[in-house]
Amino acid sequence: MTRPDILKKYDDLKKQGKQNHYGPENTRILNEVYSESLSILDPLNKEELVSKVENKKYFAFNNGKKISRAINAGLYDPDYSKWEILHAAMEKNDLSNLTKDEINKILYTIAISFCACVDLIKDRDQKTPGTFFEYFIAYFFTWRVDIEPEKSIQILNVDGEDTKLSTDFIFNIGPKKRKFHMPIKTSTRERSIMLWAHQRLLDGVYGIERFMGTPVLLAETKTNKSKKEVSEICLPEQWRVYQLYIAKLKRIYYLDLPAAYEKLNWDFPPLVVKPFSDFFFEWSDLSPS
Amino acid sequence: MTRPDILKKYDDLKKQGKQNHYGPENTRILNEVYSESLSILDPLNKEELVSKVENKKYFAFNNGKKISRAINAGLYDPDYSKWEILHAAMEKNDLSNLTKDEINKILYTIAISFCACVDLIKDRDQKTPGTFFEYFIAYFFTWRVDIEPEKSIQILNVDGEDTKLSTDFIFNIGPKKRKFHMPIKTSTRERSIMLWAHQRLLDGVYGIERFMGTPVLLAETKTNKSKKEVSEICLPEQWRVYQLYIAKLKRIYYLDLPAAYEKLNWDFPPLVVKPFSDFFFEWSDLSPS
Repeated sequence: MTRPDILKKYDDLKKQGKQNHYGPENTRILNEVYSESLSILDPLNKEELVSKVENKKYFAFNNGKKISRAINAGLYDPDYSKWEILHAAMEKNDLSNLTKDEINKILYTIAISFCACVDLIKDRDQKTPGTFFEYFIAYFFTWRVDIEPEKSIQILNVDGEDTKLSTDFIFNIGPKKRKFHMPIKTSTRERSIMLWAHQRLLDGVYGIERFMGTPVLLAETKTNKSKKEVSEICLPEQWRVYQLYIAKLKRIYYLDLPAAYEKLNWDFPPLVVKPFSDFFFEWSDLSPS
Repeated sequence: MTRPDILKKYDDLKKQGKQNHYGPENTRILNEVYSESLSILDPLNKEELVSKVENKKYFAFNNGKKISRAINAGLYDPDYSKWEILHAAMEKNDLSNLTKDEINKILYTIAISFCACVDLIKDRDQKTPGTFFEYFIAYFFTWRVDIEPEKSIQILNVDGEDTKLSTDFIFNIGPKKRKFHMPIKTSTRERSIMLWAHQRLLDGVYGIERFMGTPVLLAETKTNKSKKEVSEICLPEQWRVYQLYIAKLKRIYYLDLPAAYEKLNWDFPPLVVKPFSDFFFEWSDLSPS
Protein backbone atom coordinates (compact mmCIF):
# COMPACT_ATOMS: atom_id res chain seq x y z
CA MET A 1 0.00 0.00 0.00
CA THR A 2 1.43 3.39 -0.96
CA ARG A 3 1.58 5.93 1.82
CA PRO A 4 -1.44 8.27 1.64
CA ASP A 5 -0.68 11.90 0.71
CA ILE A 6 -1.69 13.23 4.10
CA LEU A 7 0.87 11.00 5.81
CA LYS A 8 3.56 12.07 3.34
CA LYS A 9 2.83 15.67 4.28
CA TYR A 10 3.03 14.66 7.94
CA ASP A 11 6.47 13.14 7.18
CA ASP A 12 7.48 16.51 5.66
CA LEU A 13 6.32 18.32 8.79
CA LYS A 14 8.41 16.02 10.99
CA LYS A 15 11.42 16.46 8.72
CA GLN A 16 11.07 20.24 8.72
CA GLY A 17 10.70 20.11 12.52
CA LYS A 18 14.31 18.99 12.75
CA GLN A 19 15.26 22.40 11.29
CA ASN A 20 12.80 24.76 12.93
CA HIS A 21 9.25 24.92 14.28
CA TYR A 22 7.97 28.19 12.83
CA GLY A 23 8.72 29.69 9.44
CA PRO A 24 7.44 29.89 5.84
CA GLU A 25 8.24 26.22 5.11
CA ASN A 26 6.42 25.01 8.25
CA THR A 27 3.45 27.16 7.27
CA ARG A 28 3.41 25.80 3.74
CA ILE A 29 3.35 22.19 4.97
CA LEU A 30 0.77 22.90 7.67
CA ASN A 31 -1.48 24.55 5.06
CA GLU A 32 -1.23 21.41 2.95
CA VAL A 33 -1.94 19.08 5.87
CA TYR A 34 -5.02 21.07 6.83
CA SER A 35 -6.49 21.37 3.33
CA GLU A 36 -5.80 17.69 2.67
CA SER A 37 -7.51 16.77 5.98
CA LEU A 38 -10.57 18.80 5.01
CA SER A 39 -10.79 17.22 1.57
CA ILE A 40 -10.66 13.73 3.15
CA LEU A 41 -13.29 14.51 5.77
CA ASP A 42 -15.64 16.74 3.82
CA PRO A 43 -17.38 13.97 1.80
CA LEU A 44 -17.81 11.68 4.84
CA ASN A 45 -20.85 11.14 6.99
CA LYS A 46 -20.93 12.84 10.36
CA GLU A 47 -22.37 10.49 12.93
CA GLU A 48 -23.81 12.05 16.05
CA LEU A 49 -22.53 10.49 19.29
CA VAL A 50 -24.25 10.25 22.65
CA SER A 51 -22.50 12.86 24.79
CA LYS A 52 -22.10 12.06 28.47
CA VAL A 53 -20.49 15.48 28.93
CA GLU A 54 -22.75 18.29 30.04
CA ASN A 55 -23.15 21.13 27.53
CA LYS A 56 -21.01 19.49 24.85
CA LYS A 57 -22.09 17.75 21.68
CA TYR A 58 -19.85 15.30 19.87
CA PHE A 59 -19.86 13.61 16.48
CA ALA A 60 -17.50 11.28 14.60
CA PHE A 61 -16.63 10.91 10.94
CA ASN A 62 -17.66 7.56 9.46
CA ASN A 63 -16.05 6.29 6.25
CA GLY A 64 -18.23 3.16 6.10
CA LYS A 65 -15.57 0.97 7.68
CA LYS A 66 -14.46 2.86 10.75
CA ILE A 67 -15.36 5.86 12.82
CA SER A 68 -12.96 8.59 13.91
CA ARG A 69 -12.38 9.85 17.42
CA ALA A 70 -15.04 12.12 18.94
CA ILE A 71 -15.13 15.70 17.68
CA ASN A 72 -16.60 18.54 19.72
CA ALA A 73 -19.34 19.99 17.49
CA GLY A 74 -19.21 23.36 19.26
CA LEU A 75 -15.52 23.80 18.44
CA TYR A 76 -15.34 22.26 14.96
CA ASP A 77 -15.53 24.84 12.18
CA PRO A 78 -13.91 23.53 8.96
CA ASP A 79 -13.64 26.91 7.26
CA TYR A 80 -10.16 27.14 5.73
CA SER A 81 -10.41 30.92 5.26
CA LYS A 82 -10.51 31.40 9.05
CA TRP A 83 -7.10 29.78 9.32
CA GLU A 84 -5.85 32.17 6.62
CA ILE A 85 -7.14 35.11 8.66
CA LEU A 86 -5.43 33.82 11.81
CA HIS A 87 -2.17 33.22 10.01
CA ALA A 88 -2.20 36.68 8.44
CA ALA A 89 -2.75 38.15 11.91
CA MET A 90 0.17 36.09 13.25
CA GLU A 91 2.43 37.40 10.48
CA LYS A 92 1.47 40.96 11.39
CA ASN A 93 1.91 40.05 15.06
CA ASP A 94 -1.50 41.51 15.81
CA LEU A 95 -4.33 39.27 17.01
CA SER A 96 -6.59 42.15 18.04
CA ASN A 97 -9.22 41.38 15.40
CA LEU A 98 -9.72 37.83 16.69
CA THR A 99 -11.30 36.62 19.92
CA LYS A 100 -9.82 33.87 22.10
CA ASP A 101 -12.80 31.67 21.25
CA GLU A 102 -12.29 32.14 17.52
CA ILE A 103 -8.59 31.30 17.77
CA ASN A 104 -9.28 28.23 19.88
CA LYS A 105 -11.84 26.93 17.36
CA ILE A 106 -9.40 27.36 14.48
CA LEU A 107 -6.64 25.50 16.32
CA TYR A 108 -9.00 22.76 17.49
CA THR A 109 -10.37 22.23 13.99
CA ILE A 110 -6.93 21.89 12.37
CA ALA A 111 -5.67 19.50 15.06
CA ILE A 112 -8.72 17.27 15.34
CA SER A 113 -9.13 17.06 11.53
CA PHE A 114 -5.69 15.54 11.12
CA CYS A 115 -6.24 13.17 14.07
CA ALA A 116 -9.61 12.06 12.64
CA CYS A 117 -7.98 11.29 9.26
CA VAL A 118 -5.34 9.14 10.94
CA ASP A 119 -8.05 7.31 12.92
CA LEU A 120 -9.72 6.40 9.63
CA ILE A 121 -6.58 5.60 7.61
CA LYS A 122 -4.52 3.73 10.18
CA ASP A 123 -5.28 1.06 12.72
CA ARG A 124 -5.14 2.15 16.36
CA ASP A 125 -2.27 4.56 15.71
CA GLN A 126 -1.86 6.97 18.62
CA LYS A 127 1.71 7.91 17.81
CA THR A 128 1.08 9.76 14.53
CA PRO A 129 -1.61 12.09 15.99
CA GLY A 130 0.56 12.61 19.09
CA THR A 131 3.65 13.58 17.10
CA PHE A 132 1.64 15.81 14.75
CA PHE A 133 0.10 17.57 17.73
CA GLU A 134 3.55 18.27 19.18
CA TYR A 135 4.75 19.96 15.99
CA PHE A 136 1.43 21.74 15.61
CA ILE A 137 1.43 23.33 19.08
CA ALA A 138 5.17 24.03 18.93
CA TYR A 139 4.51 26.00 15.72
CA PHE A 140 2.21 28.43 17.54
CA PHE A 141 4.28 28.58 20.69
CA THR A 142 7.48 29.28 18.74
CA TRP A 143 5.73 32.05 16.84
CA ARG A 144 4.40 33.61 20.04
CA VAL A 145 7.57 33.58 22.14
CA ASP A 146 9.79 34.06 19.09
CA ILE A 147 12.36 31.47 20.05
CA GLU A 148 12.95 27.90 18.90
CA PRO A 149 12.40 25.17 21.51
CA GLU A 150 14.95 22.65 22.79
CA LYS A 151 14.24 19.01 23.58
CA SER A 152 16.94 18.29 26.15
CA ILE A 153 18.66 19.97 29.05
CA GLN A 154 22.06 19.75 30.62
CA ILE A 155 22.18 18.12 34.05
CA LEU A 156 24.85 19.28 36.50
CA ASN A 157 27.24 16.41 37.01
CA VAL A 158 29.87 16.89 39.67
CA ASP A 159 31.78 13.89 38.36
CA GLY A 160 32.68 15.64 35.13
CA GLU A 161 30.63 13.63 32.67
CA ASP A 162 28.06 15.48 30.63
CA THR A 163 24.53 14.30 31.16
CA LYS A 164 21.87 15.44 28.73
CA LEU A 165 18.31 14.68 29.74
CA SER A 166 15.63 14.35 27.07
CA THR A 167 12.64 16.47 27.98
CA ASP A 168 9.41 17.82 26.61
CA PHE A 169 9.69 21.16 24.80
CA ILE A 170 11.76 23.77 26.63
CA PHE A 171 11.62 27.42 25.55
CA ASN A 172 14.56 29.32 26.95
CA ILE A 173 13.57 32.98 26.57
CA GLY A 174 17.00 34.17 27.71
CA PRO A 175 19.08 34.88 30.81
CA LYS A 176 17.19 36.05 33.91
CA LYS A 177 13.90 35.56 32.10
CA ARG A 178 11.16 33.05 32.67
CA LYS A 179 11.61 29.84 30.72
CA PHE A 180 8.81 27.55 29.64
CA HIS A 181 8.49 23.80 30.08
CA MET A 182 5.77 22.65 27.73
CA PRO A 183 4.75 18.99 27.48
CA ILE A 184 2.39 18.55 24.51
CA LYS A 185 0.04 15.55 24.49
CA THR A 186 -3.25 14.65 22.81
CA SER A 187 -4.53 13.40 26.20
CA THR A 188 -3.18 12.46 29.63
CA ARG A 189 -5.61 9.88 31.01
CA GLU A 190 -3.97 7.80 33.73
CA ARG A 191 -0.54 9.16 32.81
CA SER A 192 -1.16 12.75 33.97
CA ILE A 193 1.23 12.39 36.92
CA MET A 194 4.07 12.54 34.37
CA LEU A 195 3.36 16.25 33.77
CA TRP A 196 4.04 17.04 37.41
CA ALA A 197 6.97 14.63 37.65
CA HIS A 198 8.81 16.34 34.79
CA GLN A 199 8.18 19.73 36.41
CA ARG A 200 9.53 18.36 39.71
CA LEU A 201 12.66 17.23 37.92
CA LEU A 202 13.28 20.70 36.42
CA ASP A 203 12.59 22.29 39.82
CA GLY A 204 15.15 19.92 41.34
CA VAL A 205 17.84 20.49 38.75
CA TYR A 206 17.39 24.23 38.06
CA GLY A 207 15.61 25.60 41.11
CA ILE A 208 11.92 25.88 41.87
CA GLU A 209 9.90 27.48 39.07
CA ARG A 210 12.85 28.72 37.03
CA PHE A 211 10.93 26.78 34.39
CA MET A 212 7.20 27.37 34.36
CA GLY A 213 5.20 24.27 33.50
CA THR A 214 2.59 25.05 30.85
CA PRO A 215 1.45 21.75 29.28
CA VAL A 216 -0.85 21.85 26.24
CA LEU A 217 -3.39 19.06 25.71
CA LEU A 218 -5.95 18.37 23.04
CA ALA A 219 -8.83 16.66 24.88
CA GLU A 220 -9.70 13.92 27.39
CA THR A 221 -12.56 12.32 25.49
CA LYS A 222 -13.09 8.58 25.36
CA THR A 223 -15.51 7.00 22.89
CA ASN A 224 -17.25 3.72 23.53
CA LYS A 225 -17.51 2.63 19.90
CA SER A 226 -20.20 -0.01 20.39
CA LYS A 227 -22.49 2.28 22.40
CA LYS A 228 -21.40 5.39 20.40
CA GLU A 229 -21.01 7.24 23.68
CA VAL A 230 -18.46 9.94 24.52
CA SER A 231 -17.25 10.70 28.01
CA GLU A 232 -14.34 12.67 29.45
CA ILE A 233 -11.83 10.75 31.56
CA CYS A 234 -10.79 13.17 34.30
CA LEU A 235 -9.18 12.78 37.70
CA PRO A 236 -9.50 16.26 39.26
CA GLU A 237 -8.92 15.12 42.85
CA GLN A 238 -5.68 13.44 41.82
CA TRP A 239 -4.60 16.61 40.02
CA ARG A 240 -5.10 18.62 43.21
CA VAL A 241 -2.91 16.18 45.11
CA TYR A 242 -0.19 16.31 42.44
CA GLN A 243 -0.26 20.12 42.48
CA LEU A 244 0.14 20.10 46.29
CA TYR A 245 2.72 17.36 46.72
CA ILE A 246 4.77 16.94 43.54
CA ALA A 247 5.27 20.31 41.86
CA LYS A 248 3.40 23.42 40.79
CA LEU A 249 2.29 23.73 37.19
CA LYS A 250 1.70 27.32 36.13
CA ARG A 251 -0.99 26.64 33.55
CA ILE A 252 -2.63 23.66 31.91
CA TYR A 253 -3.94 24.50 28.45
CA TYR A 254 -6.49 22.51 26.43
CA LEU A 255 -8.04 22.90 23.03
CA ASP A 256 -11.18 21.03 24.21
CA LEU A 257 -11.17 21.96 27.91
CA PRO A 258 -12.74 19.16 30.00
CA ALA A 259 -15.62 20.27 32.21
CA ALA A 260 -14.24 18.57 35.34
CA TYR A 261 -10.87 20.31 34.99
CA GLU A 262 -12.37 23.74 34.30
CA LYS A 263 -13.92 23.54 37.79
CA LEU A 264 -10.44 23.28 39.35
CA ASN A 265 -9.95 26.99 38.59
CA TRP A 266 -12.24 28.06 41.43
CA ASP A 267 -10.76 26.17 44.39
CA PHE A 268 -7.60 25.67 46.42
CA PRO A 269 -4.96 24.59 45.49
CA PRO A 270 -4.50 27.01 42.57
CA LEU A 271 -4.71 25.04 39.35
CA VAL A 272 -5.33 27.19 36.32
CA VAL A 273 -6.76 25.15 33.44
CA LYS A 274 -7.66 27.20 30.35
CA PRO A 275 -8.17 27.12 26.58
CA PHE A 276 -4.78 27.28 24.82
CA SER A 277 -5.71 30.47 22.97
CA ASP A 278 -5.49 32.31 26.31
CA PHE A 279 -1.76 31.75 26.20
CA PHE A 280 -1.39 34.06 23.21
CA PHE A 281 -2.70 36.95 25.27
CA GLU A 282 -1.28 36.20 28.72
CA TRP A 283 2.11 34.65 27.99
CA SER A 284 4.18 37.75 28.75
CA ASP A 285 2.34 38.33 32.04
CA LEU A 286 2.99 34.87 33.41
CA SER A 287 5.54 35.13 36.17
CA PRO A 288 6.69 32.51 38.61
CA SER A 289 4.77 33.80 41.62
CA MET B 1 -16.45 -16.52 19.97
CA THR B 2 -16.65 -18.14 23.40
CA ARG B 3 -14.10 -16.93 25.91
CA PRO B 4 -11.12 -19.33 26.01
CA ASP B 5 -10.68 -21.35 29.23
CA ILE B 6 -7.46 -19.59 30.17
CA LEU B 7 -9.19 -16.20 30.10
CA LYS B 8 -12.07 -17.57 32.18
CA LYS B 9 -9.53 -18.67 34.77
CA TYR B 10 -7.97 -15.20 34.58
CA ASP B 11 -11.46 -13.75 35.26
CA ASP B 12 -11.66 -16.03 38.34
CA LEU B 13 -8.29 -14.76 39.55
CA LYS B 14 -9.44 -11.15 39.23
CA LYS B 15 -12.71 -11.94 41.02
CA GLN B 16 -10.89 -13.72 43.84
CA GLY B 17 -8.50 -10.77 44.05
CA LYS B 18 -11.37 -8.61 45.26
CA GLN B 19 -11.48 -10.88 48.36
CA ASN B 20 -7.82 -11.57 49.04
CA HIS B 21 -4.47 -12.02 47.29
CA TYR B 22 -3.06 -15.12 48.99
CA GLY B 23 -4.96 -18.18 50.16
CA PRO B 24 -6.04 -21.68 49.09
CA GLU B 25 -8.52 -20.36 46.53
CA ASN B 26 -5.93 -18.06 44.92
CA THR B 27 -3.51 -20.99 44.78
CA ARG B 28 -6.08 -23.25 43.17
CA ILE B 29 -6.82 -20.72 40.42
CA LEU B 30 -3.15 -19.89 39.85
CA ASN B 31 -2.40 -23.62 39.50
CA GLU B 32 -5.08 -23.86 36.85
CA VAL B 33 -3.85 -20.80 34.97
CA TYR B 34 -0.32 -22.15 34.90
CA SER B 35 -1.18 -25.68 33.82
CA GLU B 36 -3.56 -24.34 31.17
CA SER B 37 -0.81 -21.99 29.88
CA LEU B 38 1.61 -24.90 29.60
CA SER B 39 -0.87 -27.06 27.72
CA ILE B 40 -1.49 -24.23 25.24
CA LEU B 41 2.21 -23.52 24.67
CA ASP B 42 3.64 -27.04 24.85
CA PRO B 43 2.55 -28.17 21.34
CA LEU B 44 3.67 -24.92 19.67
CA ASN B 45 6.86 -24.17 17.76
CA LYS B 46 9.54 -22.24 19.53
CA GLU B 47 11.09 -19.74 17.16
CA GLU B 48 14.54 -18.51 18.01
CA LEU B 49 14.88 -14.71 17.94
CA VAL B 50 17.94 -12.59 17.20
CA SER B 51 19.02 -11.30 20.60
CA LYS B 52 20.54 -7.82 20.71
CA VAL B 53 21.08 -8.28 24.45
CA GLU B 54 24.47 -9.54 25.52
CA ASN B 55 24.45 -12.95 27.23
CA LYS B 56 20.72 -13.50 26.81
CA LYS B 57 18.93 -15.76 24.35
CA TYR B 58 15.30 -15.22 23.44
CA PHE B 59 12.65 -17.23 21.61
CA ALA B 60 8.95 -16.75 20.86
CA PHE B 61 6.07 -19.19 20.56
CA ASN B 62 4.55 -19.35 17.10
CA ASN B 63 1.05 -20.71 16.57
CA GLY B 64 1.20 -20.40 12.78
CA LYS B 65 -0.65 -17.09 12.79
CA LYS B 66 1.11 -14.98 15.35
CA ILE B 67 4.19 -14.96 17.52
CA SER B 68 4.25 -14.30 21.23
CA ARG B 69 6.39 -11.77 23.04
CA ALA B 70 10.07 -12.62 23.54
CA ILE B 71 10.88 -15.23 26.19
CA ASN B 72 14.26 -15.41 27.90
CA ALA B 73 15.49 -18.95 27.16
CA GLY B 74 17.80 -18.96 30.17
CA LEU B 75 14.91 -18.29 32.57
CA TYR B 76 12.14 -20.34 30.96
CA ASP B 77 11.73 -23.77 32.54
CA PRO B 78 8.20 -25.11 31.99
CA ASP B 79 8.39 -27.84 34.62
CA TYR B 80 5.16 -27.75 36.63
CA SER B 81 6.61 -29.87 39.44
CA LYS B 82 9.07 -27.08 40.29
CA TRP B 83 6.18 -24.77 41.01
CA GLU B 84 4.70 -27.44 43.30
CA ILE B 85 8.01 -27.63 45.17
CA LEU B 86 8.09 -23.83 45.57
CA HIS B 87 4.51 -23.67 46.73
CA ALA B 88 5.02 -26.47 49.28
CA ALA B 89 8.04 -24.54 50.62
CA MET B 90 5.92 -21.38 50.85
CA GLU B 91 3.25 -23.23 52.82
CA LYS B 92 5.92 -24.43 55.27
CA ASN B 93 7.37 -20.92 55.29
CA ASP B 94 10.79 -22.36 54.57
CA LEU B 95 12.56 -21.58 51.29
CA SER B 96 15.94 -22.92 52.43
CA ASN B 97 15.94 -25.78 49.91
CA LEU B 98 15.59 -23.40 46.96
CA THR B 99 18.07 -20.93 45.51
CA LYS B 100 17.17 -17.40 44.47
CA ASP B 101 17.86 -18.34 40.84
CA GLU B 102 15.52 -21.33 41.01
CA ILE B 103 12.74 -19.24 42.51
CA ASN B 104 13.19 -16.50 39.93
CA LYS B 105 12.99 -19.00 37.06
CA ILE B 106 9.78 -20.51 38.44
CA LEU B 107 8.14 -17.09 38.79
CA TYR B 108 9.36 -15.93 35.38
CA THR B 109 8.07 -19.08 33.69
CA ILE B 110 4.58 -18.82 35.19
CA ALA B 111 4.26 -15.11 34.38
CA ILE B 112 5.66 -15.17 30.85
CA SER B 113 3.65 -18.30 29.93
CA PHE B 114 0.38 -16.58 30.65
CA CYS B 115 1.49 -13.40 28.83
CA ALA B 116 2.57 -15.45 25.79
CA CYS B 117 -0.84 -17.18 25.67
CA VAL B 118 -2.62 -13.82 25.69
CA ASP B 119 -0.32 -12.54 22.92
CA LEU B 120 -1.42 -15.49 20.78
CA ILE B 121 -5.12 -15.48 21.68
CA LYS B 122 -5.87 -11.76 21.73
CA ASP B 123 -4.96 -8.86 19.50
CA ARG B 124 -2.49 -6.34 20.95
CA ASP B 125 -3.91 -6.74 24.46
CA GLN B 126 -1.52 -5.28 27.03
CA LYS B 127 -4.12 -4.87 29.75
CA THR B 128 -4.80 -8.57 30.44
CA PRO B 129 -1.10 -9.50 30.91
CA GLY B 130 -0.63 -6.36 33.03
CA THR B 131 -3.54 -7.12 35.32
CA PHE B 132 -2.57 -10.78 35.62
CA PHE B 133 0.96 -9.78 36.55
CA GLU B 134 -0.34 -7.51 39.31
CA TYR B 135 -2.32 -10.32 40.94
CA PHE B 136 0.51 -12.75 40.38
CA ILE B 137 3.17 -10.64 42.13
CA ALA B 138 0.74 -9.53 44.85
CA TYR B 139 0.16 -13.25 45.61
CA PHE B 140 3.83 -13.78 46.48
CA PHE B 141 4.26 -10.47 48.22
CA THR B 142 1.18 -11.04 50.37
CA TRP B 143 2.44 -14.48 51.34
CA ARG B 144 5.86 -13.12 52.24
CA VAL B 145 4.85 -10.13 54.34
CA ASP B 146 1.71 -11.89 55.61
CA ILE B 147 -0.61 -8.94 55.14
CA GLU B 148 -3.17 -8.08 52.48
CA PRO B 149 -2.40 -5.01 50.32
CA GLU B 150 -4.47 -1.85 49.96
CA LYS B 151 -5.02 0.08 46.74
CA SER B 152 -5.72 3.57 48.09
CA ILE B 153 -4.56 5.89 50.83
CA GLN B 154 -6.13 8.64 52.85
CA ILE B 155 -4.88 12.16 52.11
CA LEU B 156 -4.89 14.69 54.94
CA ASN B 157 -7.44 17.32 54.08
CA VAL B 158 -7.55 20.32 56.38
CA ASP B 159 -10.88 21.38 54.92
CA GLY B 160 -12.69 18.40 56.36
CA GLU B 161 -13.49 16.47 53.22
CA ASP B 162 -12.14 12.95 52.93
CA THR B 163 -9.80 12.46 49.98
CA LYS B 164 -8.88 8.92 49.02
CA LEU B 165 -6.10 8.60 46.48
CA SER B 166 -5.89 5.49 44.30
CA THR B 167 -2.38 4.05 44.39
CA ASP B 168 -0.35 1.07 43.39
CA PHE B 169 -0.23 -1.74 45.97
CA ILE B 170 0.46 -0.55 49.52
CA PHE B 171 1.43 -3.07 52.21
CA ASN B 172 0.95 -1.57 55.65
CA ILE B 173 2.92 -3.86 57.96
CA GLY B 174 1.67 -2.08 61.06
CA PRO B 175 2.29 0.97 63.27
CA LYS B 176 5.91 2.17 63.51
CA LYS B 177 6.97 -0.42 60.95
CA ARG B 178 8.22 0.02 57.44
CA LYS B 179 5.43 0.05 54.85
CA PHE B 180 5.83 -0.97 51.25
CA HIS B 181 4.76 0.88 48.12
CA MET B 182 4.85 -1.61 45.28
CA PRO B 183 3.91 -0.65 41.74
CA ILE B 184 3.66 -3.82 39.60
CA LYS B 185 4.07 -3.49 35.83
CA THR B 186 5.05 -5.79 32.97
CA SER B 187 7.40 -3.05 31.69
CA THR B 188 8.06 0.66 32.19
CA ARG B 189 9.52 1.93 28.89
CA GLU B 190 9.08 5.68 28.55
CA ARG B 191 6.70 5.73 31.52
CA SER B 192 9.28 4.86 34.19
CA ILE B 193 9.16 8.36 35.71
CA MET B 194 5.74 7.40 37.11
CA LEU B 195 7.41 5.02 39.59
CA TRP B 196 9.38 7.89 41.11
CA ALA B 197 6.47 10.34 40.92
CA HIS B 198 4.22 8.05 42.98
CA GLN B 199 7.01 7.62 45.53
CA ARG B 200 7.41 11.41 45.68
CA LEU B 201 3.70 11.74 46.36
CA LEU B 202 3.82 9.29 49.28
CA ASP B 203 6.94 11.03 50.62
CA GLY B 204 5.05 14.33 50.44
CA VAL B 205 1.87 13.11 52.10
CA TYR B 206 3.32 10.76 54.74
CA GLY B 207 6.91 11.88 55.22
CA ILE B 208 10.07 10.85 53.41
CA GLU B 209 10.49 7.08 53.12
CA ARG B 210 7.75 6.12 55.55
CA PHE B 211 6.77 4.05 52.52
CA MET B 212 9.61 2.23 50.82
CA GLY B 213 9.26 2.09 47.06
CA THR B 214 9.87 -1.46 45.78
CA PRO B 215 8.42 -1.75 42.28
CA VAL B 216 8.30 -5.17 40.60
CA LEU B 217 8.64 -5.43 36.82
CA LEU B 218 8.60 -8.33 34.40
CA ALA B 219 11.01 -7.29 31.60
CA GLU B 220 11.94 -4.44 29.25
CA THR B 221 12.19 -6.43 26.04
CA LYS B 222 10.95 -5.14 22.73
CA THR B 223 10.57 -7.43 19.71
CA ASN B 224 10.83 -6.21 16.15
CA LYS B 225 8.45 -8.76 14.65
CA SER B 226 9.55 -8.35 11.03
CA LYS B 227 13.27 -8.64 11.81
CA LYS B 228 12.63 -11.16 14.66
CA GLU B 229 15.01 -9.16 16.81
CA VAL B 230 14.82 -8.60 20.57
CA SER B 231 16.29 -5.62 22.35
CA GLU B 232 15.89 -4.13 25.82
CA ILE B 233 14.56 -0.57 26.04
CA CYS B 234 16.42 0.99 28.95
CA LEU B 235 17.09 4.57 30.06
CA PRO B 236 19.67 4.16 32.86
CA GLU B 237 20.87 7.79 32.78
CA GLN B 238 17.30 9.02 33.17
CA TRP B 239 16.80 6.63 36.10
CA ARG B 240 19.82 8.12 37.86
CA VAL B 241 18.39 11.60 37.44
CA TYR B 242 14.98 10.51 38.76
CA GLN B 243 16.62 8.85 41.78
CA LEU B 244 18.54 12.08 42.53
CA TYR B 245 15.85 14.68 41.88
CA ILE B 246 12.40 13.15 42.30
CA ALA B 247 12.45 10.55 45.08
CA LYS B 248 14.41 7.56 46.33
CA LEU B 249 13.23 4.09 45.42
CA LYS B 250 14.49 1.43 47.81
CA ARG B 251 14.62 -1.44 45.35
CA ILE B 252 13.59 -2.14 41.79
CA TYR B 253 12.86 -5.81 41.23
CA TYR B 254 12.66 -7.60 37.88
CA LEU B 255 11.94 -11.14 36.81
CA ASP B 256 14.07 -10.67 33.65
CA LEU B 257 16.59 -8.11 34.91
CA PRO B 258 17.75 -5.84 32.03
CA ALA B 259 21.51 -5.73 31.56
CA ALA B 260 21.66 -1.92 31.42
CA TYR B 261 19.80 -1.58 34.73
CA GLU B 262 21.85 -4.22 36.51
CA LYS B 263 24.91 -2.00 35.94
CA LEU B 264 23.26 0.80 37.96
CA ASN B 265 23.98 -1.20 41.12
CA TRP B 266 27.68 -0.35 41.05
CA ASP B 267 27.60 3.45 40.80
CA PHE B 268 26.35 6.59 42.52
CA PRO B 269 23.50 7.40 43.05
CA PRO B 270 22.47 4.20 44.85
CA LEU B 271 19.94 2.39 42.70
CA VAL B 272 19.49 -1.23 43.66
CA VAL B 273 18.00 -3.25 40.80
CA LYS B 274 17.68 -6.99 41.49
CA PRO B 275 15.82 -10.17 40.60
CA PHE B 276 12.49 -10.28 42.46
CA SER B 277 13.38 -13.53 44.22
CA ASP B 278 15.91 -11.56 46.29
CA PHE B 279 12.99 -9.88 48.00
CA PHE B 280 11.94 -13.14 49.67
CA PHE B 281 15.27 -13.26 51.49
CA GLU B 282 15.95 -9.59 52.18
CA TRP B 283 12.50 -8.12 52.82
CA SER B 284 12.75 -8.02 56.61
CA ASP B 285 16.20 -6.40 56.48
CA LEU B 286 15.10 -3.50 54.26
CA SER B 287 15.01 -0.38 56.34
CA PRO B 288 14.54 3.20 55.25
CA SER B 289 18.17 4.22 55.57
